[in-house]
This record gives sequence, C-alpha cells and structure tokens, in this order.
Amino acid sequence: MISPARIQVRFTDLDVLGHVNNNIYLSYFEMARVHYFKELLGIDWDWKKHTVVLAKNEVEYLQPVLLSHDPEVSMYTEHIGSKSFTLRYELKVNGIIFAKGRSVLVAFDGEKGVSMEIPLKMKSALFHHLRARIKSVILWYNTSSSALQHFLFIYYLLSCLIIKVH
Amino acid sequence: MISPARIQVRFTDLDVLGHVNNNIYLSYFEMARVHYFKELLGIDWDWKKHTVVLAKNEVEYLQPVLLSHDPEVSMYTEHIGSKSFTLRYELKVNGIIFAKGRSVLVAFDGEKGVSMEIPLKMKSALFHHLRARIKSVILWYNTSSSALQHFLFIYYLLSCLIIKVH
Amino acid sequence: MISPARIQVRFTDLDVLGHVNNNIYLSYFEMARVHYFKELLGIDWDWKKHTVVLAKNEVEYLQPVLLSHDPEVSMYTEHIGSKSFTLRYELKVNGIIFAKGRSVLVAFDGEKGVSMEIPLKMKSALFHHLRARIKSVILWYNTSSSALQHFLFIYYLLSCLIIKVH
Amino acid sequence: MISPARIQVRFTDLDVLGHVNNNIYLSYFEMARVHYFKELLGIDWDWKKHTVVLAKNEVEYLQPVLLSHDPEVSMYTEHIGSKSFTLRYELKVNGIIFAKGRSVLVAFDGEKGVSMEIPLKMKSALFHHLRARIKSVILWYNTSSSALQHFLFIYYLLSCLIIKVH
Repeated sequence: MISPARIQVRFTDLDVLGHVNNNIYLSYFEMARVHYFKELLGIDWDWKKHTVVLAKNEVEYLQPVLLSHDPEVSMYTEHIGSKSFTLRYELKVNGIIFAKGRSVLVAFDGEKGVSMEIPLKMKSALFHHLRARIKSVILWYNTSSSALQHFLFIYYLLSCLIIKVH
Repeated sequence: MISPARIQVRFTDLDVLGHVNNNIYLSYFEMARVHYFKELLGIDWDWKKHTVVLAKNEVEYLQPVLLSHDPEVSMYTEHIGSKSFTLRYELKVNGIIFAKGRSVLVAFDGEKGVSMEIPLKMKSALFHHLRARIKSVILWYNTSSSALQHFLFIYYLLSCLIIKVH
Repeated sequence: MISPARIQVRFTDLDVLGHVNNNIYLSYFEMARVHYFKELLGIDWDWKKHTVVLAKNEVEYLQPVLLSHDPEVSMYTEHIGSKSFTLRYELKVNGIIFAKGRSVLVAFDGEKGVSMEIPLKMKSALFHHLRARIKSVILWYNTSSSALQHFLFIYYLLSCLIIKVH
Repeated sequence: MISPARIQVRFTDLDVLGHVNNNIYLSYFEMARVHYFKELLGIDWDWKKHTVVLAKNEVEYLQPVLLSHDPEVSMYTEHIGSKSFTLRYELKVNGIIFAKGRSVLVAFDGEKGVSMEIPLKMKSALFHHLRARIKSVILWYNTSSSALQHFLFIYYLLSCLIIKVH
C-alpha cells in the first residue's frame, strides 16, 4: 500500500476564521494525486505526452482544518472506464476524517490535444491500486467478526462489483 | 436580476499548461457568492453573527479558462432547506459555459459555533433569488415556441416543484 | 499615459486578520506588469522567445488592503540597464498610497535559457514609458509654484539623470 | 540552533514555466517565521495581544525552485530596534542558496491597534537568536584558517557591531 500524502498547512491557506479556505482542499487532493501517481507510474512517466485532465471535482467538508494540524490524504481508485477514471480522497487529521473528495479524470493526449483511451500502463497501475485496496479490506474483514463489519464488507464487495461491471 | 460576478483572471492562477488551475475555480465561485450575497442581504449583514459554512462543493470543468479570458459567474439558488441550501454556478466566457459548480451551505451561528435554522431574512432573500430565476425562465418561454423549449420549460417547472416539496 | 492596473481583491486573498496577505501584493504587482507590458509591447510579443525573469522584488506595506477596497497599481520604469531594468509600483486606494514596490528584471532568451541584452523594441518601449513619466512631472511642475514643488522637481530631475548616467 | 523550516512545494505553486511563482517565495518565508517563532516564543504566545506586522519584504531570486525540490529556509535576526526588527532568510536546495530574503517587522498591539515597543520576552528571544548565530560563526572561524575566512569573520563582526550600535 502507498502511504498517504502528508500535507503541510500554510499560514496563507487560512481564511479570516482561521480555517483552511475551502478551495485549498482541492490543492491538497492535487498533492495527493502527484504523490500517488509518482508511486503508481514512476518518475519517468512522460506527462507532456500522456496526461490527464480534470473533468470533475467534489469536496465534502466535515471539520475545519487548522494551521496546527498535520493532515494526511489517502487516495483510492474508485472506477476505471475506457477514457476516464474516478479517484476518491480521504483527508484525515489524527486518524479522523475531516474531508472527503472525488475527482473524475480523463486521459489526454498532450501532443494532439484530444482525449484518448487510458494508456495501458496507467490502466494496469490503476487496477493494481484498486486491487491493493480490496486486499486491505479483505485483510481487515478476516480479523473482524461483528455484524456491522459483515454488512460493510458485503456493501464494499458489491460496490467494487458495480465498478467492474460498469 | 443580479448581474453575474465578473472575475479578473490572474497570471498566478495559471498552471504549467497555461490553464487556470482546477482549485482556483472554487475561489471564482466564492467571489460570486460574495457578489450575490452583497446584493441579496445588503452590506450591513452581520456575518460574524449569522454566517454560513460550506458542507460541499462541486466543479465540472468543460473548457480551460485562460489569462486572456473575462469570465463571468452566474449564481442560482437551487434548493432551500431548513438549515441548509444549495447554490449552483455557471462560469461563462463570451456567453459560453466553461465550468459549472454547486455548493451546499449550512447556516451557522458564529457566536455559539453551532449550525442553526436559516435566518428568516436570509431565507426570504434566497426565495426572492429563486423566484427571479423562475420569472426569467417564464419570460424566456413566452418569447419562444419550439418543442425543445416546451420540454425544457416543463422540465424546469418540475425541478422547481421538487425543490419546494422537498 | 497608460492607466493604472485595476485589481480585484478576492476573499481568499485575506489572512486571519481580514487584511490582504503580505505575499499577495507581489501578485498584484505582477498583474500590473502584465497590464503595462500589454500596452507597451502589444499582445503579439513572443514571450516564449524574449522573456524577462525576476531578479529581485521589494514591497513596502503602508496600510492594510481590505476586501472592500478597489486598489489600483501604477507602474513606473525607474532604471534601464543593458541586460536588466527596474520597475517601481504604487498601490493606491482612493488616491492614497497603501503599498510601494520595486522589481529588478533581467532580459532572458527563453529558447537558449540564458540572460541577454534587453531587446531593442523592449528597451525603446521602456524609454518611452520613462519619458511619459518625466513629461507628466514637468506638466505638474508648470502648473505649480511652491518652494516644495521646486525642490521636488529638481530632486526628480537629478534622480532621472542618475538613471541615464548609470 | 533552530533547524531550518522544511517547505513542501505544491503543484499549484508553479507558474507556466514550471518554476515556483515569484510571489510564493514570500509565503515560504512566512512559513519560516511561523516555524522559528514557535521555537523562539513557544506555542503559548498570545499573538492576538502582542503581534507583529510586516513593514517591508525583499526577495532575491538566484535560481528557480522546482516541484521536485525540497527547499529549506533558514531565518536569521539581523537587526533589533526599539519598535521594529529585521529578519533575513536563506532558501536552500541541497545546501545551495536559491533565494534570499529580508523582512522588517513592527511590534503591534493587537488590542489597541497601534505599534508598540517590542515586548521584553520577544526582544530577549530575538537577541538569543542573534547570539546563537554569532556563536555558530565563531565556531566556524575557530576551525578555519584561510585569509578569506579571516576577512569574512571580521566583516561579520563589524556588521554585528553596526546592528548593536544602530
């Protein structure tokens, strides 16, 4: 598993209430993307040639992030299509979720300036990332036994199924 | 009708591709909120006492905004609940939609630090804003006659109904 | 004379005190550079080929800029060397100076990646900009008569002389 | 000695050339101030009561900072006056100086909204910070012997003298 992206909060991220401004969260998720893609695709990936463009972004604000916090952003692959894929983010402070996010990205041919099928190497890296998540959930399930955990596990399996069938 | 918020693109908004960075769009929508709320609630509104906090933000990127553009952001009230409401944004360049957005905001008692019912004056201003939109759609319908326009109008009326019933 | 650059203050520019954050001023000066250079060099200037890089920046903070302000930044050419030149900025709100700045810029060959002599067209545009300033000072002097104004005028002429001799 | 502030470069810090934008450097220096003042004054310092405001900022750009870099900012106390003091910054990447900076700050009574004498505890912390720097220079001198080092040491002592006499 790739370790979460550790984010350094800046004084200039704060708004008049002393909370991290709402638009800064998207730059935190962007930092998570840079961090995870470096691991998934290596530092040699030619981003000028085969890049991705954002089609959609979502942020859910649960608790305000402060200057004294050390947020960590975990990124998960949620859906892999033919030309686009969906990433999901969880921003945690001391293990507690403070914000959630989701991005839809489209594979893009940087030289021709048009959208394209997700390059094979990127697609397999995303599947690897998705599988690693499923494995960690199964691991968690194996060491657990409550009815709630049963339910959550079946819910998770179903949602993965939907991703693959989709 | 309140005129759209005119946005000044900054050189520092651009990313390495020369496009406005994805997280900057949320600050454009924020500027639209400041612009519209000044009109809707007046400049005397005590934001320290009765404020709003963001629960959710969404952005859809249709075309990249460039330094040479003069974007305008229109804001619409989409849904009014008891404690929260939903705003919708359209960012246009020369009349063409380049990005769309949506925010869920929660009324917040700034002194007690808890969520609250939407203050009456704010609620009636939001309803006024919603009605102005409906009126402009009816006006547009009265000067039109195609089957598509009939369909769009009925669709719009139904979606407004859902907002009120909800 | 080129009219000053009009700056749109953003909510996200503010720090926890409700003042425009100190580092944002440099982006305001940057916007003034973009505004003035568009006038001085035209929109056809090939910035990829003949560009400028910042060697130094200075800001003096006199009064805090607020969200309700409409700041204007005037830019003056202060010194023209062989490879570098110096610009000076005045940020005003309602005619009162709120901040001052100064930048040293170096002409840069974007293709070869090395510093270069200031291109002739850029140099003559900068001299034109400098002369326009001197003319406006002379105009101001002709319509004035106090001892202080005499002194200020001679001071200004001497400082221009230093620029040319230097 | 306080360890330098480690800065996390963000994708959004980059301009169209892929370099950290010129105005971002001031936010890096700001992060260094927050880092050093936390060490110098403790986390209990009441910044609402006894704060500092920026009177001046300077940045010298020597080499462009890139996304792949891990910059570190060292902060030094350069001058301590009665109401104001001067800080100096060095931004290094792999031990090489990429940028330098300087700030003049004024002690400010946050409650009365006026400038004030530097509070005694802050002043003594700044002197402590200044002395630590002098000691490290003397240490460096004791383990060195070239003529250049002699010269640099005497130059440094003289500049410290000027600070104290001033």
